[in-house]
Amino acid sequence: MPVGLLLVLMGAALPGAKANEPGALRRAVRAHVRKEGPAILREFAALLSIPNVASDGPNIQKNADLIVERLAARGVKARLLNGEGGPPVVYGELRREGARRTLGVYAHYDGQPVDPREWAGEPFRPVLRDRPLEEGGREVDLSALPGPPGGEWRLYGRGSGDDKAPIVGFWAALDALAAAGIPSSVNVKFLFEGEEEAGSPHLRAVLERNRELLAADGWILCDGPVHQTRRMQVFFGARGVTDVELTVYGPLRPLHSGHYGNWAVNPALSLAHLLAGLKDPGGRIRIAGFYDDVRPRTEAETRALAELPDVDAALRHELALAETEGQGAPLAERVMLPALNVRGIQSGHVGARTANAIPSEATASLDFRLVPDQTPARVRELFEAHLRAAGFAVVSDAPNLETRRTQARLVRVQWGSGYPSYRTSLDQPFSRAVVGAVEEGAGGPIVKLPTLGGSIPMYLFPEVLGAPVIGVPIANHDDNQHAANENLRLQNLWDGIEVYATLLARLGELWRE
Amino acid sequence: MPVGLLLVLMGAALPGAKANEPGALRRAVRAHVRKEGPAILREFAALLSIPNVASDGPNIQKNADLIVERLAARGVKARLLNGEGGPPVVYGELRREGARRTLGVYAHYDGQPVDPREWAGEPFRPVLRDRPLEEGGREVDLSALPGPPGGEWRLYGRGSGDDKAPIVGFWAALDALAAAGIPSSVNVKFLFEGEEEAGSPHLRAVLERNRELLAADGWILCDGPVHQTRRMQVFFGARGVTDVELTVYGPLRPLHSGHYGNWAVNPALSLAHLLAGLKDPGGRIRIAGFYDDVRPRTEAETRALAELPDVDAALRHELALAETEGQGAPLAERVMLPALNVRGIQSGHVGARTANAIPSEATASLDFRLVPDQTPARVRELFEAHLRAAGFAVVSDAPNLETRRTQARLVRVQWGSGYPSYRTSLDQPFSRAVVGAVEEGAGGPIVKLPTLGGSIPMYLFPEVLGAPVIGVPIANHDDNQHAANENLRLQNLWDGIEVYATLLARLGELWRE
Repeated sequence: MPVGLLLVLMGAALPGAKANEPGALRRAVRAHVRKEGPAILREFAALLSIPNVASDGPNIQKNADLIVERLAARGVKARLLNGEGGPPVVYGELRREGARRTLGVYAHYDGQPVDPREWAGEPFRPVLRDRPLEEGGREVDLSALPGPPGGEWRLYGRGSGDDKAPIVGFWAALDALAAAGIPSSVNVKFLFEGEEEAGSPHLRAVLERNRELLAADGWILCDGPVHQTRRMQVFFGARGVTDVELTVYGPLRPLHSGHYGNWAVNPALSLAHLLAGLKDPGGRIRIAGFYDDVRPRTEAETRALAELPDVDAALRHELALAETEGQGAPLAERVMLPALNVRGIQSGHVGARTANAIPSEATASLDFRLVPDQTPARVRELFEAHLRAAGFAVVSDAPNLETRRTQARLVRVQWGSGYPSYRTSLDQPFSRAVVGAVEEGAGGPIVKLPTLGGSIPMYLFPEVLGAPVIGVPIANHDDNQHAANENLRLQNLWDGIEVYATLLARLGELWRE
Repeated sequence: MPVGLLLVLMGAALPGAKANEPGALRRAVRAHVRKEGPAILREFAALLSIPNVASDGPNIQKNADLIVERLAARGVKARLLNGEGGPPVVYGELRREGARRTLGVYAHYDGQPVDPREWAGEPFRPVLRDRPLEEGGREVDLSALPGPPGGEWRLYGRGSGDDKAPIVGFWAALDALAAAGIPSSVNVKFLFEGEEEAGSPHLRAVLERNRELLAADGWILCDGPVHQTRRMQVFFGARGVTDVELTVYGPLRPLHSGHYGNWAVNPALSLAHLLAGLKDPGGRIRIAGFYDDVRPRTEAETRALAELPDVDAALRHELALAETEGQGAPLAERVMLPALNVRGIQSGHVGARTANAIPSEATASLDFRLVPDQTPARVRELFEAHLRAAGFAVVSDAPNLETRRTQARLVRVQWGSGYPSYRTSLDQPFSRAVVGAVEEGAGGPIVKLPTLGGSIPMYLFPEVLGAPVIGVPIANHDDNQHAANENLRLQNLWDGIEVYATLLARLGELWRE
């Protein structure tokens, strides 16, 4: 253990830096990063070299073991928690003598499955490039870097952005603070999950089993991207999710559309009526009571929305959208509301495979995005009540012949799993402290997003552990998350290290009632 | 040439049978068929042994040559007409000295394409079975039949039902009349087409080029099945057809439904609204003016509809339909009206391939069935006007980026080809004569169908040749038309021969102003 780090852990500040002076703190971290950049990247690459698909047990174990070892090398008391049926969960603890607060830090070390044929290189052989692939980026030899790596360089590999970057970011932040002799201002509990991309099916059980161990005053969730403008952002919530598949029925077998058209009911048309009844073309969901549980916006949220950078016009241009739902209301406002999305529809054939037939079945797949205080259970109830009110007979299993013969307007409804949304107040002390520390770390105002549009099971932290949670991502938005050629833009890593180091050094001071 | 046939052609009646006494005529034909049944089947099998997919030029030519040769052997002046770019058309002429009327007889010798893997045997190696395949029918050796073939036996092979049966039926009818010494009562012009299953793309040109040669007082169209009750039927019309493919647009690429759901327009939902606006759930088409051109039903048609056997309950049971469009109006009434059928819809993914994404496009394929006096051109006009009135911007080509960026509610409309319907009066002399002759041939009342639900380009005969046309099918309805294991039920052939022989012998007498 380096002497500096030992002193940090003991709570002693080195005379060379003043932890509560933001400019000095950032300068110290930046100097460390500039000097150690190549070493940080090589440590990152070593972690990226271990395949990390959640179902790949032996490699998942190797990832977890390496993370424990690297935390321990930095004086973090690290070990593996039982995954309760899932991959092991990395737990690490950093105690600061006399700290009033404990911060929980969540990230995940697993990544999305890969299709190597779609990658320019190999998903688990990390490659550093001097610019993005699309711009002709050339490979730079990691083992012999000619000078400090450029901020626009990219490190390619599965997990580089989602979500190993925060893990490596905290390693470097700890080193930078140690080098500068700056102590952490809070106790820290690290929790690194190994199956987030598989839907975190055992996370609840792990939290429940380790409720006392994981007790903290607040959690930060280090996942997701920074703002599209490349400004640092924090998010105070995420939408919940549930999904459903609907099947409606026509004749038992496809029929000649001439001989039977205008007589046999057409399931594709029935489905169109069903879907059109769910949502008007302007985007308002027509399910009775659907908006009743939607928690009104707070003043702080309205202010935060007003302060968000305007990206709508650029997005509409990029996506070739002449109009949007909700009479042109901005994206950030729209995701404060629930969504009903048609993921897919299928019946009969189109294009070259078209036949003059009345299809036998028609299927639609929907997903809902929920906001506080909606619950998946209540949404299911309202949705099925809507179908019944619209004259449909709702069944959950495939109907037998007798049911099809006797029951008109049958619809089979198959629900997937789901979980509720979460949104914490922007006004509470933890929120103000995190925003303050991240703004110090970023050197200026950040984007405060009341909620992500997407879904993350943030709700588990308050529900099981009784603590608020705030998202503090560092990855670039254009990191090809979940796709081929995932990458991290190096400037995002350098900035992220400054932010995480500042959080550790300053949060305790800023976190007041 | 047999002596009997020669005498028939010369208009002389043999003393042994009285052509205008229906019972005697049927008995004579039946006796011939009973005696010659095995020979008729072997001649049929020889024709079925020649592959007859329209695109198979050399074999199509062999089919046409064999038919000419077999007609000529019966004293018909037969030859090939230039196909005007399509397969040769068989033409045959039978003149009866002193006949007042000329009857045109249309059938087609080509068949639907085959997928041999789906067949129990080979599509072009005809097999006689002692019952249907589904009931365990065993092969019977055609070259050594133990006795008269049973009525419930089936002859399997592509084209057996659709549409070589009428060709063979007329060969046998000519032989039966010759054997009985009964002359034809009308001049006959045979026209056997070789690309009906490919959409008859050159039939109009052939009719136009041979207008004088093909002049006749009325045509019968020998295609399609008899009634589902196995009663003989004639049909006085067919619906027309046209089709269209619709594409609506969302974001340029599929989007994460969490991050963008409730903001980006969803093309699957737009399509659902479009389709729901076309037709109400009860089956009424909502396109303004769509029913304006629909010719009202005549009294004779209403009477004919009332006399039709009721098959609806059995069909609903078989097809597991708890309800039908049009408040339970019978199938035969419903096909007197136009139909709008959704052949297929597709957008995003359903089932195992579902992803939480907003699709980029949604497509629907529709077909219309038209009735008198609708035209495809007018339907296209009304349909596009409907879309515009519903707020859609209609384009015919794939929209470019700029169009997608600036024009909301875009829909690409791609029309297929189409042709109008046809329906002739049940009251006109030709209709009464055909019904009378077929009823004599069938030995009792037949089913008089004002129109088929399906589409056949019957309109060409009146439009190009100025003559009415009536459908006189003989195949069983369960002949697996267009599918694997196509077959003809032998009783349908025996009955068909009686009907066609009676038509030839009696039509001249019955056909009066």
